[in-house]
Amino acid sequence: MKALEERIQKDGQILPGNVVAIDNFLNHQIDTALCRKMADAIYEEFQDEPVTKILTIEASGIALATLIARLFNAPLLFAKKTKSTNIHHDIYETKVDSYTHGDTNRVFVSKKYLPSTDKVLIVDDFLAMGEATRGLIDICQQAEAEVVGIGIAVEKGFQPGGKYLRDHGHRLKSLAIIDAIDEESGIITFRVQDDLTELCAKKALPNKPSFERN
Amino acid sequence: MKALEERIQKDGQILPGNVVAIDNFLNHQIDTALCRKMADAIYEEFQDEPVTKILTIEASGIALATLIARLFNAPLLFAKKTKSTNIHHDIYETKVDSYTHGDTNRVFVSKKYLPSTDKVLIVDDFLAMGEATRGLIDICQQAEAEVVGIGIAVEKGFQPGGKYLRDHGHRLKSLAIIDAIDEESGIITFRVQDDLTELCAKKALPNKPSFERN
Repeated sequence: MKALEERIQKDGQILPGNVVAIDNFLNHQIDTALCRKMADAIYEEFQDEPVTKILTIEASGIALATLIARLFNAPLLFAKKTKSTNIHHDIYETKVDSYTHGDTNRVFVSKKYLPSTDKVLIVDDFLAMGEATRGLIDICQQAEAEVVGIGIAVEKGFQPGGKYLRDHGHRLKSLAIIDAIDEESGIITFRVQDDLTELCAKKALPNKPSFERN
Repeated sequence: MKALEERIQKDGQILPGNVVAIDNFLNHQIDTALCRKMADAIYEEFQDEPVTKILTIEASGIALATLIARLFNAPLLFAKKTKSTNIHHDIYETKVDSYTHGDTNRVFVSKKYLPSTDKVLIVDDFLAMGEATRGLIDICQQAEAEVVGIGIAVEKGFQPGGKYLRDHGHRLKSLAIIDAIDEESGIITFRVQDDLTELCAKKALPNKPSFERN
């Protein structure tokens, strides 16, 4: 997605260790107008799937997932990191290592919100090692719910998460895939992808649903 | 807001200790269609304020705050609970006690995303003791940014958070205020409020902005 790639190149802050901080428009402060365009692109990618639930993990994927859930007219479910005393019923739980934070979290969802009939679109803002996404897939497998797709804002293509998911047959769409970061020049190289959003816009395809979806 | 009150009465799960769990449509699984109506109502309440930033706290306030940020065409900033290794710059930090989780978190925002010129609308899904909201106000005070309003989905009117904020001169709008919970009958009593959304709908006031705001 061109607009996202340009924004990463313009506003991303390159840090040592192949890190691009994008907390000025996606991870901490969120440009919700750009986020809406990203949601449109994910929706257009997966609109042929019978999505019944959007699943993400707290916290920074929730904004994008919310806008995508509106488009699919589906509930949003987010995996939680701490067990609230309000939640007494049965849960599906999994372990997620965070390389960014250098720790491990146990995350969970309530069983009653993920029935086996659900067709799940997993959404997250970032994919690098793929730990969070694989944790969400594990939760869906425990629930025997079908993962129909994975929509990611930014993938680090030089880390193994994306390859692992594609090799395992998952339908994965990352709006921007960073293949290389040159710390010296500040140039970020993105993988060339078909951009369905732009194709649709160019061809004026009837890719918008008729219900109010905002 | 009638639709929210009805949903709390219908789907809220009353637990011992005056707790109403609303994790089936707001705190864990999120009904984003209802959330959009709630965002509309908060927007209508504060549309006369020159809001430049929406501030919330991770995680369950982010969905509502995202939709409100779209309406104001303003960036969303959410206070984080853990320090990412990606964030090296200066932060405003505050302490938030959580009575629900029975613990204390330090939350922070990056200084560069909260300049003193900001006019901040604080948003959260829940207000009871008011700890989270007061933490966000504290962060705004450190930044010398002006808090122009506080928009809350559900307030527990029998706990002191709302009264404290109103007594301190804050413009607070809670879409539903629970004044009493009868554990035996399951009846929840809501405070009677002027419902600006419904008034506007009835009078067909021109309360919608003309720009695309979804």
